[in-house]
Amino acid sequence: MIKVGIIGSTGYAGNELVRLLLQHPETEIIWYGSRSYTGEPYASVYGNFFRIVDAECLDDDLDKLAEEADVIFTATPQGYCASAVSEKILSGTKVIDLSADFRIPDVAVYEAWYGITHKSPEFLPEAVYGLCELYRDQVRTARLVANPGCYPTCSILAVYPFLKAGLIDPKSIIIDAKSGTSGAGRSAKTANLFCEVNENIKAYGVTTHRHTPEIEGVLSRAAGVDAAVTFTPHLVPMQRGILVTAYASLTKEVSEEELRKVLLQCYENEYFVRVLPEGICPETRNVEGSNFTDLNFRIDKRTNRVIMMGAIDNLVKGAAGQAVQNMNLMCGLPEQTGLRQIPMLP
Amino acid sequence: MIKVGIIGSTGYAGNELVRLLLQHPETEIIWYGSRSYTGEPYASVYGNFFRIVDAECLDDDLDKLAEEADVIFTATPQGYCASAVSEKILSGTKVIDLSADFRIPDVAVYEAWYGITHKSPEFLPEAVYGLCELYRDQVRTARLVANPGCYPTCSILAVYPFLKAGLIDPKSIIIDAKSGTSGAGRSAKTANLFCEVNENIKAYGVTTHRHTPEIEGVLSRAAGVDAAVTFTPHLVPMQRGILVTAYASLTKEVSEEELRKVLLQCYENEYFVRVLPEGICPETRNVEGSNFTDLNFRIDKRTNRVIMMGAIDNLVKGAAGQAVQNMNLMCGLPEQTGLRQIPMLP
Amino acid sequence: MIKVGIIGSTGYAGNELVRLLLQHPETEIIWYGSRSYTGEPYASVYGNFFRIVDAECLDDDLDKLAEEADVIFTATPQGYCASAVSEKILSGTKVIDLSADFRIPDVAVYEAWYGITHKSPEFLPEAVYGLCELYRDQVRTARLVANPGCYPTCSILAVYPFLKAGLIDPKSIIIDAKSGTSGAGRSAKTANLFCEVNENIKAYGVTTHRHTPEIEGVLSRAAGVDAAVTFTPHLVPMQRGILVTAYASLTKEVSEEELRKVLLQCYENEYFVRVLPEGICPETRNVEGSNFTDLNFRIDKRTNRVIMMGAIDNLVKGAAGQAVQNMNLMCGLPEQTGLRQIPMLP
Amino acid sequence: MIKVGIIGSTGYAGNELVRLLLQHPETEIIWYGSRSYTGEPYASVYGNFFRIVDAECLDDDLDKLAEEADVIFTATPQGYCASAVSEKILSGTKVIDLSADFRIPDVAVYEAWYGITHKSPEFLPEAVYGLCELYRDQVRTARLVANPGCYPTCSILAVYPFLKAGLIDPKSIIIDAKSGTSGAGRSAKTANLFCEVNENIKAYGVTTHRHTPEIEGVLSRAAGVDAAVTFTPHLVPMQRGILVTAYASLTKEVSEEELRKVLLQCYENEYFVRVLPEGICPETRNVEGSNFTDLNFRIDKRTNRVIMMGAIDNLVKGAAGQAVQNMNLMCGLPEQTGLRQIPMLP
Repeated sequence: MIKVGIIGSTGYAGNELVRLLLQHPETEIIWYGSRSYTGEPYASVYGNFFRIVDAECLDDDLDKLAEEADVIFTATPQGYCASAVSEKILSGTKVIDLSADFRIPDVAVYEAWYGITHKSPEFLPEAVYGLCELYRDQVRTARLVANPGCYPTCSILAVYPFLKAGLIDPKSIIIDAKSGTSGAGRSAKTANLFCEVNENIKAYGVTTHRHTPEIEGVLSRAAGVDAAVTFTPHLVPMQRGILVTAYASLTKEVSEEELRKVLLQCYENEYFVRVLPEGICPETRNVEGSNFTDLNFRIDKRTNRVIMMGAIDNLVKGAAGQAVQNMNLMCGLPEQTGLRQIPMLP
Repeated sequence: MIKVGIIGSTGYAGNELVRLLLQHPETEIIWYGSRSYTGEPYASVYGNFFRIVDAECLDDDLDKLAEEADVIFTATPQGYCASAVSEKILSGTKVIDLSADFRIPDVAVYEAWYGITHKSPEFLPEAVYGLCELYRDQVRTARLVANPGCYPTCSILAVYPFLKAGLIDPKSIIIDAKSGTSGAGRSAKTANLFCEVNENIKAYGVTTHRHTPEIEGVLSRAAGVDAAVTFTPHLVPMQRGILVTAYASLTKEVSEEELRKVLLQCYENEYFVRVLPEGICPETRNVEGSNFTDLNFRIDKRTNRVIMMGAIDNLVKGAAGQAVQNMNLMCGLPEQTGLRQIPMLP
Repeated sequence: MIKVGIIGSTGYAGNELVRLLLQHPETEIIWYGSRSYTGEPYASVYGNFFRIVDAECLDDDLDKLAEEADVIFTATPQGYCASAVSEKILSGTKVIDLSADFRIPDVAVYEAWYGITHKSPEFLPEAVYGLCELYRDQVRTARLVANPGCYPTCSILAVYPFLKAGLIDPKSIIIDAKSGTSGAGRSAKTANLFCEVNENIKAYGVTTHRHTPEIEGVLSRAAGVDAAVTFTPHLVPMQRGILVTAYASLTKEVSEEELRKVLLQCYENEYFVRVLPEGICPETRNVEGSNFTDLNFRIDKRTNRVIMMGAIDNLVKGAAGQAVQNMNLMCGLPEQTGLRQIPMLP
Repeated sequence: MIKVGIIGSTGYAGNELVRLLLQHPETEIIWYGSRSYTGEPYASVYGNFFRIVDAECLDDDLDKLAEEADVIFTATPQGYCASAVSEKILSGTKVIDLSADFRIPDVAVYEAWYGITHKSPEFLPEAVYGLCELYRDQVRTARLVANPGCYPTCSILAVYPFLKAGLIDPKSIIIDAKSGTSGAGRSAKTANLFCEVNENIKAYGVTTHRHTPEIEGVLSRAAGVDAAVTFTPHLVPMQRGILVTAYASLTKEVSEEELRKVLLQCYENEYFVRVLPEGICPETRNVEGSNFTDLNFRIDKRTNRVIMMGAIDNLVKGAAGQAVQNMNLMCGLPEQTGLRQIPMLP
């Protein structure tokens, strides 16, 4: 059994990690870390785990945890992992960081968008961006994986194939994304109260959202072009799910069939990416609770644009599920181990 | 592998059966029955199953299905199973009926509350009421199981221990139940449109809901008393979940501790029944997607009543999950096989 | 124009007061009090008022406000009004308190249920319980009105007519109430986050909710009997609305027609109370945004109980609307002035 | 009093017309038309009107209605108004059509996008597109007004000022729109059931939505340029509200201040258009129940695009409210008469 520890286990992503790892045949959770609930029974924070988890929450002593765990997940605020990780920890343990600390290779870009100083830039070169569909081989041998952001996961998977194939203008990409409210976390903020979120939709972080450089950077590097992205996230009155609607100008006249071929080929061996039949739009409910990414596209002939659409569960493929997918690769397990949950509907 | 067929697989309960049976290690679904969608790919009706289920929907030919299946689930409108079942079918196949056709032993009561003629009363004597926690032994050897209604499951499990122990007045029971909208089914009715259900709560079927005689009858027979129940269901703007708040007069002065002991002893060996710690109220979200029933109670000392509370997922313990639990017992499998899903939250 | 001031104008009840009073033809709001947002534009707290309210939030200096206002609304936490009110204030101004400070005539009962010391019990004898349908004449001449709680408003209006008429056993009353989440206020608490409330229903404050003695006391005094009430509130994933389902044993055999006559007669002159046609259950959506209370009932002949149902908008008839109704009476205006909004649906 | 009749009064837009017109000081509703509910009390269809509307639904005899009414609203499916209107009707009555029949001047375009034959193209030349902010003077003297679509209203108001000012490339416009579910109407369709819509977001009608030529045509004509628009609508799990997020390339380098000046000037005399302060994004809840359009924008300097945002209540400014606004103008009333409802929140 792989011994795993979770720092930040009482946030929504941490809670989802617990759910997935408890149902994973090869893992044992030995550390339910939570700064806010240290000493309290985990099941008193999340009642769904009553009589399933008996453990109490522990503090976030990464060094101590590293002595006991084979794999550590940090589902923590920006800056924590960069400040706590060390050569000693990495030499004995695998670390999968769900925060943004190691997603952006250029320290200056990270510090500009996140407004904090990076405490361990020395590990940036070795950190692998854990979007398995693009970086599977590098993940397998990584000590430190930067688990992708929720919006970037869905955005990159939707746009990458066409960008890589040279079919869309890399400067024309517009990503309009919509997220359920669990993406906003579990902190007690007025803006996230039921009565503030329900029966409402709004954009936020317009032109300034921190996932912008992550999306742009990964797309550029993976496709080998210099992409520029306008990215606008929205808050939707639902709990889980991200829908991405991305727009780009086609570089030439192509048919739906040609584009479909490109998309299908790109993901033909990917269990977790489902290219939907022509005319079927991705819906977040169809991936809820699962690690799937549903994709499709449509050509707007009148304007020669392509509309690329993707749907994920932000807590699974957008966070905890992808982290487990990375763990499986890093530990030499079949990639789908413990991740074949069927989406739950309604 | 157990070969199972589902008649009525495109309703919400049928869809949940598919989800659970596909993840069950010992079953193979050989028949996705659907009168409305015969000939269409199952995954075109329920997009969550895209690339998971390739089968097309078949009609509801129970005789033909019985030749091929070991177990048949009928998730169909009232009257179907009673009109289709036969000695020939039952002699070769196990039938688990999710409708009400075989839940009420007295034909006259069934016909009075349901307003239809029972087509095969000859099978009523052998039909077993599939509330495993009360009738486990009879279920094991049954050919025909009447899977309990959603409200009755939650109501009976919440009230039974105290009634059986003689601690509550059997004529004083009031059950105020609240259900998510999936309980109303998937038919296209104006009353179930998003804009009619959302931001609203209402009672319905007041004094006339068909689950009343089922609750009353099972409680009376199981506890060996002549119980009378006032039952009021409500429609809640959420998808899944039933919450029962039941009231009864205590027959004597008892302490919370004494009642707790009764409740804990009654369910001490039941994996799927979780008696919550004192002061913690059941919440539907804590059982969502799982086969658990969460229970608790509180004494109102001022009025010498006990308030008994229970929560289930109406599609799992209230329908498909309980049906699989029954199948496991009928087939000699460990009762929890394929049913250990952890509730998903948020 | 009546000059009104609101202490606590940035809570949900305060916000609703602002909405109603701005559309009231006889009032002018001169004080938007808010301890949390003093100095900030009111419209920056509630964007719906952008370009409608230019005022900034003021502090909660009740003495100063009393010099300027004709009517003061205190939509504040328990204890504030009792600690701030004075003979000087009351001699120059009318005060309508939306908190519980003056709802319970017996100080000991108040202090036991609320766990705080009452700072001005000397005003309790003159305070009038502002349920206009029962205490209209007293309200007209009051200096200090205790605006009823949301649950009590709906519960009392639903049960009172039958209790007063001697048709129900005063010791048999059980009130199962369901509330939208705005009733929980606008404080930033984890329990009220969208992802904690949505897709969930739960009971809370079982046997201990502070509205219990208010309901019981008013019912007893108004009907002239010694009533005992079991009261259980529930939190529903919707914004506005309270639904009450109340149960009581009938004292004799009566017909639906007889009960209906009692109910209709009791409220025959009440604009804001709508007795629905036989067989139609109250729904919260049908009163949303309005000051109406919708009522109906059903006899459960099998158990000789009556099920009494009521629906209100908790922020209007359950708080701000009723406060304006009280103001109208206290100021000699027609009772419906500014309160004839038609419920908004969907 | 203006005598008004409504054909299609039992759809959501019709229901909202009734709510607004009953609260309008100068109108009397003399005809509640409804093909589906002819002969039934209007309040039995919409319980919010209980004891407010006593009338029964009448059929859709437009000729008879025209003899009695001063103004007729047709809130009917596409094709009805075009097939029923006549010179006789128009010579005696004003008609405000909430369907698309008279929104698109070019019959061929209408027939291509709507797939039906236009039955009275002879009235197209005189029909005025009732977006009052752009066509106020023409509306005043019109006999036949085409009430704008919900998406077009919000989209055009958000984009028009910048397009007119030559600040954005007319070929670069992308409109990503999100709508509450009341926009889908009240027909009993499986796709609009609570359990299908809730906890989900999806795009629909991608590249084919019928509002595309309406948006494109009005923008082009009003701004005097040849605009091309990619338009993608989405369905959001909320009842009311449309949010538009529109993207376009700036034709030159401009500052936020310059753009703000353009926007403010364009709408400086418009009561119903609120340009929000810098940095504040429109939210649908802030306009709910009102006739306001909230607008703002943001420059994405990195890509030299402008993101234009707008929010309306789809049933008010997007349908019934705008229709009343048109009626006010056509009847010589102050434009805001009966339309100053303050948005209701939460």
